[in-house]
Amino acid sequence: MTKQKISTRISESKKEKPASEQLEFGRVFTDHMFVMDYKESKGWHDPRIVPYQPITLDPASIVFHYGQTVFEGLKAYETKQGEVQLFRPEKNMQRLNRSNDRMCIPRIDEAFALEAINQLVHLDREWVPNAPGTSLYIRPFIISTEPYLGVAPSKQYQFIVILSPVGAYYKEGINPIRIAVENEFVRAVKGGTGEAKTAGNYASSLKAQEIVSEQGFAQVLWLDGLEKKYIEEVGSMNVFFKISGEVVTPALNGSILEGVTRNSVIQLLNHWDVPVTERKISMDEVYQAYKDGLLEEAFGAGTAAVISPIGELSWNGESLVINESQTGDISKKLYDTLTGIQYGSVSDPFGWTVKVNE
Amino acid sequence: MTKQKISTRISESKKEKPASEQLEFGRVFTDHMFVMDYKESKGWHDPRIVPYQPITLDPASIVFHYGQTVFEGLKAYETKQGEVQLFRPEKNMQRLNRSNDRMCIPRIDEAFALEAINQLVHLDREWVPNAPGTSLYIRPFIISTEPYLGVAPSKQYQFIVILSPVGAYYKEGINPIRIAVENEFVRAVKGGTGEAKTAGNYASSLKAQEIVSEQGFAQVLWLDGLEKKYIEEVGSMNVFFKISGEVVTPALNGSILEGVTRNSVIQLLNHWDVPVTERKISMDEVYQAYKDGLLEEAFGAGTAAVISPIGELSWNGESLVINESQTGDISKKLYDTLTGIQYGSVSDPFGWTVKVNE
Ligand SMILES: Cc1ncc(COP(=O)(O)O)c(C=O)c1O
Ligand SMILES: Cc1ncc(COP(=O)(O)O)c(C=O)c1O
Repeated sequence: MTKQKISTRISESKKEKPASEQLEFGRVFTDHMFVMDYKESKGWHDPRIVPYQPITLDPASIVFHYGQTVFEGLKAYETKQGEVQLFRPEKNMQRLNRSNDRMCIPRIDEAFALEAINQLVHLDREWVPNAPGTSLYIRPFIISTEPYLGVAPSKQYQFIVILSPVGAYYKEGINPIRIAVENEFVRAVKGGTGEAKTAGNYASSLKAQEIVSEQGFAQVLWLDGLEKKYIEEVGSMNVFFKISGEVVTPALNGSILEGVTRNSVIQLLNHWDVPVTERKISMDEVYQAYKDGLLEEAFGAGTAAVISPIGELSWNGESLVINESQTGDISKKLYDTLTGIQYGSVSDPFGWTVKVNE
Repeated sequence: MTKQKISTRISESKKEKPASEQLEFGRVFTDHMFVMDYKESKGWHDPRIVPYQPITLDPASIVFHYGQTVFEGLKAYETKQGEVQLFRPEKNMQRLNRSNDRMCIPRIDEAFALEAINQLVHLDREWVPNAPGTSLYIRPFIISTEPYLGVAPSKQYQFIVILSPVGAYYKEGINPIRIAVENEFVRAVKGGTGEAKTAGNYASSLKAQEIVSEQGFAQVLWLDGLEKKYIEEVGSMNVFFKISGEVVTPALNGSILEGVTRNSVIQLLNHWDVPVTERKISMDEVYQAYKDGLLEEAFGAGTAAVISPIGELSWNGESLVINESQTGDISKKLYDTLTGIQYGSVSDPFGWTVKVNE
């Protein structure tokens, strides 16, 4: 792919920005968006930044019927020095292309997409909030736009990036959450689309999530779809358990999404010489460790909440209270270090952050 | 739900209709469409028939990101007497609501939706093609339209119906197809969304379909996601095998879509006193029957092609040629009877057809 110039059309009216303290997640969007089109004869073309605006599509567009779509999620953070930076954005673009491969969507040029994100965030720079824990959420996504009711890969696509200023996930810092182990519904299975970031995985998770929310749980813990035995993820996060001093996370197996935060947690633990293992781990094993008093911590890891300590796991009518529902030392240290690097208040030995610039 | 009046806005310009012989599947759409909105405070409201037109949605609409959507597919047929009729449309509306339940989408009023389809088809009556084997394909679908990036059921939806005149699926009548048994990819798994007609199931099928198409196969035969042993469906059709005079189809198990054609085939076979069983059936069993010379016929069943004889099954590098790649007697009789009832040339003992009227 040859690099193309991104045209920019500035919005004539600026929207009002919400107060930093009132920010929620994913409800408010900035003044501009990035759009690029694909058709077979031209490849990806016409990259442009335009005022944030509705998408107009034929009702027969494949995305509405067969859900051929992928997306990403990352954040821009404002540092104390007033600079704006991204956290490992190249990882998101790599994953986007892996998702594209699985979903039969043409690959994007990763460096060019990063440049588009850079320009878009730079243009909407004033939308990056700066109250503690707030950030600008970046949502790149690709939709299939060919008007055709046949079940076949689309011949037309749009790659779009929208931005949303978001609040601190936990208003009072990190706080342990209650999780229900899901025994009935399945998010994804090997051979399916679980390792791609694609719409259907999230659609299929809604029902289980709806049921446990009514029972007061924050998220479900997904077990493998084959035996309903092995642990996969928690809600839209990867999951870690600290058992007898060792941190364990489910090995990537084809149905688990490979999180950027997961990868960063593993690197940090290695860096700190804390034993960390990627392997199969069953709910039985976690239960046994709990009974034996060896389950020291559990936490979810993902871009939205960074680190989410698990205070309670509900399984087959039993309630496993972990670390007295307190945030554990490793969870806390990971949270502080990751957010510290993201906001530029802690040194970044891995070169994970990328400055947004003109 | 109280019945609401459907408002109608007639298209000012009429599109040109393609010649019956040149019709493909799902590429051309009629002059009008039906639209109805949902929001929490009002329920389903504002039902209207409008000129066929693009949909305009916020780029943050849930459908683009989390694929919360369901759809249906049925057909209107023109009889020799020049009347237009539908085939068991109430079954499609029932299934739509079952899909809605699974996908956390509010139910529709089935009778009202049927009335909307009736009025829409009636208005675009001239689009119902009448060359042999042609019909008007009806695509009702629901999309989640709330602009929100949280993974939660949408609070806004649109229910839309579009119409597409379609050609005979097989230009020269029915013709056996070549099928590849899929050992790697999985369409759906128990606990997932396989029994709902929702976008993600079709998105996840694209990759396997793309690979086997390049090898000259028409469709894949899906095995169960757990053991990759038991037969589920073939492409977007349910599947039947005739072994030693008995017709066998996989029992509904949570990951198989319950086809209207499948149900009709079973009723017809019962009516004819042909033994038919719904049960688990493994690829090993089919292979053994083939080796023993007992596999007499195999066919797919679905709205698009009605009955699709399977002439060849490719599995683990071996090719099973069924009934010398000829259309079997039962396949032929089912095809003739079902299409006969659909086009009104054969009597309809079950009361399956419904006339479209003012
Ligand atoms: C299903 C799922 N698992 C895990 C994650 C965590 O990935 P990341 O750390 O890249 O945000 C996400 C995304 O946020 C996800 O959607
Ligand atoms: C996955 C799948 N299986 C089976 C069928 C057959 O269902 P029906 O006979 O209602 O068309 C369809 C739909 O056409 C389908 O999409």
